[in-house]
Amino acid sequence: MATSTRSSKRQKTDTNADADDKPFRLIYWLGIPGRGEHVRLAFEATGTRYTDVSNQTDEGVGAVLKQTGDDNNGDEHNPPAFAPPILQHGDDVTIWQTPNILLYLGPKLGLVPDAQDDPVGLYHVNALALTALDGLSNEPHDVHHPIAVILYYEDQKTEALRKAKDYRENRLPKFLAYFERVLDGPASAGGEYLYGGKLSYADLVLFQTLDGVSFAFPKCVGKIRDGAKYPKVWALYERVKALEPIKNYLASDRRLKYTLGIYRHYPELDDE
Amino acid sequence: MATSTRSSKRQKTDTNADADDKPFRLIYWLGIPGRGEHVRLAFEATGTRYTDVSNQTDEGVGAVLKQTGDDNNGDEHNPPAFAPPILQHGDDVTIWQTPNILLYLGPKLGLVPDAQDDPVGLYHVNALALTALDGLSNEPHDVHHPIAVILYYEDQKTEALRKAKDYRENRLPKFLAYFERVLDGPASAGGEYLYGGKLSYADLVLFQTLDGVSFAFPKCVGKIRDGAKYPKVWALYERVKALEPIKNYLASDRRLKYTLGIYRHYPELDDE
Repeated sequence: MATSTRSSKRQKTDTNADADDKPFRLIYWLGIPGRGEHVRLAFEATGTRYTDVSNQTDEGVGAVLKQTGDDNNGDEHNPPAFAPPILQHGDDVTIWQTPNILLYLGPKLGLVPDAQDDPVGLYHVNALALTALDGLSNEPHDVHHPIAVILYYEDQKTEALRKAKDYRENRLPKFLAYFERVLDGPASAGGEYLYGGKLSYADLVLFQTLDGVSFAFPKCVGKIRDGAKYPKVWALYERVKALEPIKNYLASDRRLKYTLGIYRHYPELDDE
Repeated sequence: MATSTRSSKRQKTDTNADADDKPFRLIYWLGIPGRGEHVRLAFEATGTRYTDVSNQTDEGVGAVLKQTGDDNNGDEHNPPAFAPPILQHGDDVTIWQTPNILLYLGPKLGLVPDAQDDPVGLYHVNALALTALDGLSNEPHDVHHPIAVILYYEDQKTEALRKAKDYRENRLPKFLAYFERVLDGPASAGGEYLYGGKLSYADLVLFQTLDGVSFAFPKCVGKIRDGAKYPKVWALYERVKALEPIKNYLASDRRLKYTLGIYRHYPELDDE
């Protein structure tokens, strides 16, 4: 398959002019949303062209293995990547780590506050994204893999059952309450988005992690939403989901289904 | 106790002129190195004045609780912090998340490549720091708390024993081999430091996480070092440890002892 050629829905602006000059290549595992989804959403939300290398080119998953192989020491400008997602920008930039890729893309795609107006805004967005990734992505992953990533779920199911209970009862509410507090606070400038009254990549990360948690723990999340708990958090989730480019993306075949990645639905790990 | 008043060993330069204008306050738990140690090391390595609020002022641990309390919604400029470490810079900047604080301090303290010469360098340093924190700080923590942070170690010891074996046999070697590969690669510019031939905060993070892992798993790390495995990684560890301001800091009473924080020494979780 060739690079996605859909036309941008967004007018070319100074903000993403740089983004259009050099091609963006996302290198991530084949066929799962995973952490790569945060990078996809940044591109999709801003109508930025990118190539999802494993899913859209003949390179396939070999593109990942080439980067993370034991014989890759990187190049003159770029240290080797530890793990995907990996972003290539033009010929000479290769960076990795999900929050780091978002940090790099943020100013280029207009997904952080303008540095002239608000030089600290970028750091707030980064902290909010890191916090959502910690509590609503890394921790849900560890629920089904509490002992070792190299073992099957079935080989750590006893431990997973115990960890899932703590996650549902303590950790998930703690993170949701925190983000509700952020949206209640004055720095959100009204509570529509996490920071400064405008969409940032932290909102996209929160949307995606809430979506994943809802897939993994539908009964638990259903009870929370039925109980009208954390209303601003769920309003933000619905607000991002309804953004025109996001809505179109979610309906497209570029949006991959959750399977055996970070977010897994094992009914025994959910509420009864 | 008053703010630390030791004089800076470093000439005031343009790079850290900003740093000296407004006071830095580190807000972290009392009496443990923890994640706050990465922030302390950035200040100490560069001879930058800072106040370790809980340990050096009458505010004590109340300074943490005030920030993370359920009734704190932040202020007009700053969202509430989720957890310490928290950095206050002057009257109007409050940021949190360890890698985010380092990212903020990096250019101010001269611990990242100059943005004019190398605009991508900051992102490489950030990725390297994030990777060390993932594999050599978060994972070792989860070894002794695989099920729930609110439970005692003793209540999850069976699971911890299983996870510790995977950590020693699979995860720790994987991360050490990765950093050896980084130091072997051309982007390290010689292998003395992780990136660009100069000390960055990623080196300080790697030093501190290796130090913590060595405390937690002395027999396992002893075997690795006796076997001369990952020689460049351990040479970097010794190199950072021998830097004049770091050596002085480690010998001072500002350097806190490992106790029941991220890095814990339970002999049963170490090699035999």
